[in-house]
Parts: sequence; C-alpha cells; structure tokens
Amino acid sequence: MAGQLIVFEGIEGAGKTTQLQRAAAWLRSQVAVPVLTTREPGGTLLGQELRHLLLKVRDADEISPRSELLLYASDRAQHVDQYLKPNLAQGAIILCDRYTHSTLAYQGYGRQLDLKLIQQLNAIATGGLQPHLTFWLDLAPEVGLQRIQQRGEPNRLEREALAFHQRVRQGYLSLAQQDPERMIRLNAEAPAEEIEQEITKILQKSLGQPLS
Amino acid sequence: MAGQLIVFEGIEGAGKTTQLQRAAAWLRSQVAVPVLTTREPGGTLLGQELRHLLLKVRDADEISPRSELLLYASDRAQHVDQYLKPNLAQGAIILCDRYTHSTLAYQGYGRQLDLKLIQQLNAIATGGLQPHLTFWLDLAPEVGLQRIQQRGEPNRLEREALAFHQRVRQGYLSLAQQDPERMIRLNAEAPAEEIEQEITKILQKSLGQPLS
Repeated sequence: MAGQLIVFEGIEGAGKTTQLQRAAAWLRSQVAVPVLTTREPGGTLLGQELRHLLLKVRDADEISPRSELLLYASDRAQHVDQYLKPNLAQGAIILCDRYTHSTLAYQGYGRQLDLKLIQQLNAIATGGLQPHLTFWLDLAPEVGLQRIQQRGEPNRLEREALAFHQRVRQGYLSLAQQDPERMIRLNAEAPAEEIEQEITKILQKSLGQPLS
Repeated sequence: MAGQLIVFEGIEGAGKTTQLQRAAAWLRSQVAVPVLTTREPGGTLLGQELRHLLLKVRDADEISPRSELLLYASDRAQHVDQYLKPNLAQGAIILCDRYTHSTLAYQGYGRQLDLKLIQQLNAIATGGLQPHLTFWLDLAPEVGLQRIQQRGEPNRLEREALAFHQRVRQGYLSLAQQDPERMIRLNAEAPAEEIEQEITKILQKSLGQPLS
C-alpha cells in the first residue's frame, strides 16, 4: 500500500466531520497526492443504500443485533475492495469518518455483542487493511448528545440511551489503551481551532514517516 | 424447537417454488399447526430490501464477493431471529426457499470463495438453527437455464455463465453426499406430479418422527 488511511472516531457530536474536513483542506495545501474524504457506513453506492437501512429504521428492535453487525461488515467489505484499496494503491491519503473501531465500540461495548465475533467480522471485512493513524475525538456523552439535539431530528443510533453512549466511550478508551501508538486521543471539548492545530501537528509528523 | 424447518434447494429453474407451494398445500390438509412459506433472501422486511440490492444490481462486479457474502448472512440473521425461531417455537412447520446450502453452493462452489469462511458466517447468521430436512431439486444447469429464459428477464445470478451453474450443482452434490440423511436429492427433470408425490411420501414419514 502506497497511500495512508487516516480514521476519525468518536461518539455522536464529537466534531468528527468538522475536523476531518479541516484536516483534508490542510493536507491538500501540503501534498501533491490526492486527498480523499469518505465515511462508513456509506462510502460506496451500495454502502449508501446500507447506510440508509441502518440509520433510518425507526426502532432498533427492527434490526436484530447480529443482522446489524453483518450489514456493517458488508458495507465495510465493499468500501475496502472498491474504494479504499484501489485509491491507497495509487498513493492517495484517505480520511475516513469511522472504521473498525466504531464497530467494536458501538456493537461490542455499546450493544455488548461478543468482541471476538466482531474482531472476526472486522478481519473478514477489511481483508487486513489497518489505518495508519486513528484520531479519537473524546468527549463526555452528555456534551455530545446536547450538541446533536441542536442539529434536528436524531437518527436511530443517536436516540440510544445515555448509558449506551457511556459504554461506547468506555470502549474507545480500552481500544486506545491497547494501541496508543496508532490511536490518538484528542479532547473534543476543547475549541475546534485547538483540536485542529493538534491534528495538523500530528499529521505533519506522520507525513515524514515511512508508511506501513 | 417445537416446529420443523424444511428447506427447498436447487439451481435456477429447478422448480423449487412450485414444489414448495404444493408441499405447503398438502401439509395444510394434514396437520393442525400453522404451515408457513418463506424464502432467503427476502423473508423479512429488511430482507426484502437486501434481496432487492442483491438481485437487481446490473453487474456482478458492482458488489464485491465478500460484501455479497456478508449481505446474505445479514439477511439470514434477521430471518432466523425475527421469523424462523419465533414461529418454530410456536410449533409451526416452515417451508423455506433456500437456506445455508445455497450460500455454500453459490458463493463457495460457484464463486469459489473460502468454504471455511462461509461455514463460519453461516454459523454466525443461523445461531445454530439447522433444517429438519432439505429437498434438493437436482437438474442439469442447461435445462434449468432454458426454463428460466422462458420466464422473462433473468436476474443477476441467473445471468451467470453455465460453468458457474455447473460448479453450483457440483456443490449441492458434495453437500448431499456429506449429509444424506437430511439432504434428499430429487430428480427435478421428472414431471412435477412425480416429484410432488415423492416429497409427499417423505413428508408423511417425517411427520411421524420425533423432531430434532
């Protein structure tokens, strides 16, 4: 793989989309290779249909937890095969909103499905493709939920109880502790400009490093 | 599980739908419990959306093979959790058009994806739910393809090459050899009435047996 895959993670309202867009703009001013932005679920045409199914269903009970997990995995396999791998092979830097850590945090820690099963499905779906770096935008779930309430009608995952989002945050914390080199915690309650500067500093350093 | 799950398998044009409907009509004349008919993919509301995605895509290349496999697994998990298990628990006899053997035959033998991976996904998707009986309607792929050409525009899987359907048939043959007690081969080139009689005879015997 010639390019770099950089992932943005965090609970709802953490500011992932804003920081991802700012990082993309900065990277485009620094490098000659294509800088692409994408997301999971929904990074492919098929994925957009799956994202619609996953987020628009009115009631969580309508999708069985195992079925939901397999849908996310299907979206990921399509994204890896049709978008991420071909673009990385051409040297692109890809900024992706959510990846395997989301599935572990939400379905594993949040919904308390078997973590080994999720790891198994992540391995099947990614075909082994790991991010070069993951930025974890961390904030208290109360703060995140307050922010998204101002955005309009919440989607299915946003409507989950506070306890659910607390387990999800705890999940991200465990994942960051297991892989501190490649999963970087950022305080998402800080002003957006501060977070942006911190990300820029880390990216600057990462651009000079040999790619995995 | 109090009820019975009976699966109909075979390549396109084998007459699964006809025989399944006739068997349902006969069973309804014989037993007091509910006799239900269903299919995979598409046995639930979510499944209908997934079936649409899986069969209507114009070009097989648009869905990556791993993504396709995971979509079938997602449809199956939803079907097992929301339809099959609850109805079996209430004593229903369920006749299902395609189940795990289709995934092994089409994706494993047909598309030559890893059989162990498919077995792993089948186990995840079914949560261990096995059919009581599987009827395999076997015929030469040339005959099946000729039959479906008369039906109008073929779907994505029907458009696959003859060599693909020959591998699928070979796959069913291997599966039947591995489990001859529960997977029953029927000659689908025989007249429909003969096949119907054979199925009726076997169902008659199975109704008297203790359920698994």
